Amino acid sequence: MGIVIIRQDDKIGMWKEALQLYAPQIPVYSYLEDHPREAIKMALVWKHPKGTIVGYPNLECIASSGAGVDFLFEDPQLPSHIPITRVVDEYLAMDMSEHVIALILAQLKNLYHYKVDQGNTIWKPIAYKRIADMTVGIMGLGALGSVLAKDLVRFGFRVQGWSGSEKNIKGVKTFTGSHAQAEFLQSTQILVCLLPLTPSTTGILNAELFNQLPKGAHVINVARGGHLVDEDLLKMLDNGHLAGACLDVYHQEPLRSDHPFWEHPKVHMTPHYASVSDTNSVVPQIIENYRRLISGEALLNRVSDTKKY
Amino acid sequence: MGIVIIRQDDKIGMWKEALQLYAPQIPVYSYLEDHPREAIKMALVWKHPKGTIVGYPNLECIASSGAGVDFLFEDPQLPSHIPITRVVDEYLAMDMSEHVIALILAQLKNLYHYKVDQGNTIWKPIAYKRIADMTVGIMGLGALGSVLAKDLVRFGFRVQGWSGSEKNIKGVKTFTGSHAQAEFLQSTQILVCLLPLTPSTTGILNAELFNQLPKGAHVINVARGGHLVDEDLLKMLDNGHLAGACLDVYHQEPLRSDHPFWEHPKVHMTPHYASVSDTNSVVPQIIENYRRLISGEALLNRVSDTKKY
Repeated sequence: MGIVIIRQDDKIGMWKEALQLYAPQIPVYSYLEDHPREAIKMALVWKHPKGTIVGYPNLECIASSGAGVDFLFEDPQLPSHIPITRVVDEYLAMDMSEHVIALILAQLKNLYHYKVDQGNTIWKPIAYKRIADMTVGIMGLGALGSVLAKDLVRFGFRVQGWSGSEKNIKGVKTFTGSHAQAEFLQSTQILVCLLPLTPSTTGILNAELFNQLPKGAHVINVARGGHLVDEDLLKMLDNGHLAGACLDVYHQEPLRSDHPFWEHPKVHMTPHYASVSDTNSVVPQIIENYRRLISGEALLNRVSDTKKY
Repeated sequence: MGIVIIRQDDKIGMWKEALQLYAPQIPVYSYLEDHPREAIKMALVWKHPKGTIVGYPNLECIASSGAGVDFLFEDPQLPSHIPITRVVDEYLAMDMSEHVIALILAQLKNLYHYKVDQGNTIWKPIAYKRIADMTVGIMGLGALGSVLAKDLVRFGFRVQGWSGSEKNIKGVKTFTGSHAQAEFLQSTQILVCLLPLTPSTTGILNAELFNQLPKGAHVINVARGGHLVDEDLLKMLDNGHLAGACLDVYHQEPLRSDHPFWEHPKVHMTPHYASVSDTNSVVPQIIENYRRLISGEALLNRVSDTKKY
C-alpha cells in the first residue's frame, strides 16, 4: 500500500507532509527516496521527468495533482491502461476566474498602459471601456471556463463561449463545434483560452484565428503554452490587429530570457500562477480516490482515455 | 437668457456644441468670447480661473459639470448666495466603481508587480489573494461610494464603509462619525477614499490614519489630491506598513515631473481619468436645471451651502 509523489519542483516535501497529516495510515513516499515499488498503488504526479512512472507493478491510478493532465500524455513511457485522474477544485476555478477578470479590467481601464507611462513620466489620459460594452468570448466551457463565464455574467459583461460539446449556461451565448467558431470569433472583443491541451487544440491560437477576431481585440491565454503560435501573436500585435495579450502560460516555463514576449509592450506576462492547487483542497480528493482504489469503487474525476482530458 | 461655459481645458467647444445640439433654443457662450453678461442665468463651470464667475448681474445658478464642487469653494471671488449644483450621473458612479475594482484586483493578483518583473526579465511567482478574503473599506458613501460598495458586495468582497452621516447599504457594515473611524480602519485591508473635499476632510489620509490600518494594507485615492498628505504616504510605503497605493488624483494635475510618486515602485498612478463626465449624461440634467430656473422650480443636485458638497 502506498502513494508515491513524482514532481520536479521543490514541493514534494510539502505534499508529502500534507498527505501524511490528512491520512497518517497511508504510506507516502517521494520518488527520489528508497521506497517499496511493489507496494505503490497510486502515483501523485505533476510535471514528472519522462519515464519515471515506470517499474510500479501494482500501480492502479496515476493522479495528477492539478487540473491538467497534458504533461502525462507527453510522456512516451506513460503506462497504458492505468486510470488517470485529475483534480477538480472549486478554488482552482474561482482563482482562475478572478485572475482572468483582473486581467480583463486592467485592459479595459488601461492600467498596464498607465504603468508604462508612469515609468516615462508621461501624464496622458486615454479613453477607458465599460464592462457593459464588452463581449468576452471563452474558448472552453469545462470546469474552469464555466465558472469564469458565470462570474463574468454576474459582473455585467456580455459573455459567450465556444466548446467542443453542447453547453447550457445561463446568460451565456454558446457556440458548439468547429463550424460555429467563426461566428463566435467575429463578435468576441476579449478572447480567453481555457481549453484543455489536446492534439486538436494544439496551436489553435494562430494567425487564422486571430484574423477572425475584430480589430482591437485582446487575447488572454491562461490554458497552455501549446495552444499559442507565438510568432503569429507577435505579428498580430505588431500590425495592430490585436490590441494586447495577457499570457500566464508558455511553450517553455520559465520562459527563456531572450524570448520576444519579455520586451513586447503589448504582451503582459504572469509566471504561470493564475491559479494554483492548494493542498487543503486537493489532498482530500486524492485520499478519497485512494480509498476508492482499495474498496473497488469508481474513481473521482477520471480522465477519459480517448479524449485525454 | 443664456449659459456661459467657464473652464481652462480645451473642452469648451465640445460642451458648447453638446448643449446647443440638445437645446438649440438656449444661447450658450464660452466665457472667452464676447457675450451679453447681463443675459447669463447659469454658469457651467469646471476648474475655472479664480475670479471669472464675476460680473454676471443676473446669474441664478453656478453649475459644476462634474461630481465635485471643491474647486468652486477655493475661489475667494465665488459669488455668494447663488445656488450651486453638481452632476449626479449614474455613469460617473459606475465608471468610478469599475476603475476602483480594476485597481483592487490588480493589487490582489500582483499584476503591477509582475509588470515590473517582466521589465526586468524576472520569472518569480508570488502568492495571490482571493476576493472573499479581502475587506475593502470605503470612506465616503455618497453617490459614488454607495455604488462602489454595492458592486463590491456583488463581486464577493467583504465591504465596510465610513461616512459622516448614517447610511444603510445591504451587505455593507457601516461606521458613522469620527468616533467610529478607528474601528473601521483597524479591519480595513484595502482603503478607498471617495469623500468629498471639504475643510474637515482635507489631509485626512495622513500618518495617523495610515497607522491605524493593518500592516500590508493598500490605499486607493480616487477622490481629491487634497485628501492626501503625500509625504506621509511615502513614509508608510517605505517603512513597509502599507503595501501599495493607487492614485488617480494629486495636489497638482498634471503632477510635476520631479514629484517622488512617479518613480516610487509602490505607487501606481493614473492621470485623473477614473471616471469622466460624458456630455450625453450631463447635458440633459444641465438643461433640465436651466428649465427649472426659468420656471422657478427647485433645482436638481443642489449643493448644501453649509456642507459644501
